Amino acid sequence: MSFFRKNVEAMVPYVPGEQPKPGSKVIKLNTNENPYPPSRRVSEAISSELAHGGDRLRLYSDPVAFDFRSAASEVTGFPVDGILAGNGSDELLALIVRAVVEPGETIAYPYPSYVLYETLAHAQGAPVRAVDFPRDFSLPGELFGVDARLVFVTTPNSPSGTSYAASELERLARSVPNALVVVDEAYADFADENALELARTIPNVVVLRTLSKSYSLAGMRLGLLFGAPAVVAGIAKVKDSYNLDRLALVAGAAALRDGAAMRESVAKIRKTRERLTRGLAGLGFEVLPSSANFVFARLDSTPRARDTYVALRQRGILVRYFDRPLLDDGLRITVGTDDEITALLAALGELR
Amino acid sequence: MSFFRKNVEAMVPYVPGEQPKPGSKVIKLNTNENPYPPSRRVSEAISSELAHGGDRLRLYSDPVAFDFRSAASEVTGFPVDGILAGNGSDELLALIVRAVVEPGETIAYPYPSYVLYETLAHAQGAPVRAVDFPRDFSLPGELFGVDARLVFVTTPNSPSGTSYAASELERLARSVPNALVVVDEAYADFADENALELARTIPNVVVLRTLSKSYSLAGMRLGLLFGAPAVVAGIAKVKDSYNLDRLALVAGAAALRDGAAMRESVAKIRKTRERLTRGLAGLGFEVLPSSANFVFARLDSTPRARDTYVALRQRGILVRYFDRPLLDDGLRITVGTDDEITALLAALGELR
Repeated sequence: MSFFRKNVEAMVPYVPGEQPKPGSKVIKLNTNENPYPPSRRVSEAISSELAHGGDRLRLYSDPVAFDFRSAASEVTGFPVDGILAGNGSDELLALIVRAVVEPGETIAYPYPSYVLYETLAHAQGAPVRAVDFPRDFSLPGELFGVDARLVFVTTPNSPSGTSYAASELERLARSVPNALVVVDEAYADFADENALELARTIPNVVVLRTLSKSYSLAGMRLGLLFGAPAVVAGIAKVKDSYNLDRLALVAGAAALRDGAAMRESVAKIRKTRERLTRGLAGLGFEVLPSSANFVFARLDSTPRARDTYVALRQRGILVRYFDRPLLDDGLRITVGTDDEITALLAALGELR
Repeated sequence: MSFFRKNVEAMVPYVPGEQPKPGSKVIKLNTNENPYPPSRRVSEAISSELAHGGDRLRLYSDPVAFDFRSAASEVTGFPVDGILAGNGSDELLALIVRAVVEPGETIAYPYPSYVLYETLAHAQGAPVRAVDFPRDFSLPGELFGVDARLVFVTTPNSPSGTSYAASELERLARSVPNALVVVDEAYADFADENALELARTIPNVVVLRTLSKSYSLAGMRLGLLFGAPAVVAGIAKVKDSYNLDRLALVAGAAALRDGAAMRESVAKIRKTRERLTRGLAGLGFEVLPSSANFVFARLDSTPRARDTYVALRQRGILVRYFDRPLLDDGLRITVGTDDEITALLAALGELR
């Protein structure tokens, strides 16, 4: 017999990108991590929280993450009660689904995008309305006015790297006034524009951010949700009380308060992104315009894309290959350091 | 209009125990934190993970928490695939509910116990069958054979401190073969006996542990679930991929591998618990036999209990008062250091 709900029994769990064993010598361009270390203030803040032999760790962390949210408020101008802190934006996505979607109600999103959306819908027993992106990854027209309880839009989108204008997202939100629209901006710091303002002005919009990418803190699991205070309060109801530990909280606050460090790392990545894009184009790839810390680069056939992925792997270079329609003729490549990208382009040159 | 599910709209969120502002001079005996610092190995392991200016923090943490689970396996003899790591046992409780209980299916537990069970049931839209404890907090007979999908039993129970024999819990589990029985052993290290073995031998039992109490790591959010590998795999399906950050993972592994430090702190607390129990009895309290790091002590009336709580608070001593039937004539008092308990007993002596 099974102890599980039918939809959970049927679920295929989300498979995160491959993580090489510690100490192995690979060039890791497969999970969109930042190649540069976080602000020095982060490790200083953690060390300071460890004072007196870690004595503070015996006490519960702040259940409302006040100081971390205050730092987010200082950076964005959002009121603290319009901000919710999560154990990564993954937790925030899960909380939203659980708070908003009754089993049987529909979740819509353009496809392909972040694969976790589908996993979360299955866990909740919610039907999925995945609206196919066109080949250029512009926002599909069918999404406007879609009949759903919850709509996810990722901008910049993964794995395409394409981004959507705030004005277009506003039009989308206004076309589905009874749905909550979640604008997932994990990669927004790498883009020219973002839609954060919509979370302040449009009642059915929340915007998600993460410290995993631009702040180089994927290992600390820090996400932020911005929205109307009443919406934030409703989502917070289904959150675990102490969802962030003491060290994550001080790390997050310190990182946000050192915006200069983040912007410096983002500037380097954007520069390398340009070089990578030009290099790939020169090697015959079709590269989608990227506003993120990765690019999606197409080859002329599915077998060539898959073979290239395998050949790179054999040379110790990990990129991401998705065996799905619209993606299976391309590779998603994280923008690493300049040296890593030089090595990648050299390897691709040899493989031509 | 509301964007929320009806059951979420109706929910009253769980209110965690009061946390005084940093720097305030209070004796904090209200949230069952350990008064002694964690093992030195914990801060050493965290500092080592922070090497190279925190460079490792830019990489995702291990989604399957392999080393932390391996440490738990070394300590318990459980196979690694029979262990799941959670962001505190709170997250594990939430995952179990989401994986097992269809909205409309019943969750049963003896009452009063950990108040989070009710919050989780409401979040899932699951009816609650709360079976009243008798005044001595022995396991209620009605729980045996109860018609429910999920049964929670806390042993030692909070806020009573009373514990239940593994043989009795086995009988309970066998009486509800179609339900999953969750034995929540947050305080088990302070008891003479525990029921971990049932998670290995009875297919419908899982046992939860936490590093918050005996390992002095409430601030790091580390929980462990033990059960049959198939049950563990099903629950893991609804878990966020990267539910534990890098520093929590190394902290947890280091703490588990220094069992001597944990046992030393537990031995001191058990000794102080005896003194506290005797002292309270001498002051006219009726103290339930405690197997935890707190005691539940009754006064002769509800107003006296409430007044005592308020008077202690005015003197800077925080204990926990629950305004609920069966509890409202008593106080839950965490076993602090010897000095803290001396101060508490002195204050209670003056208040007589």
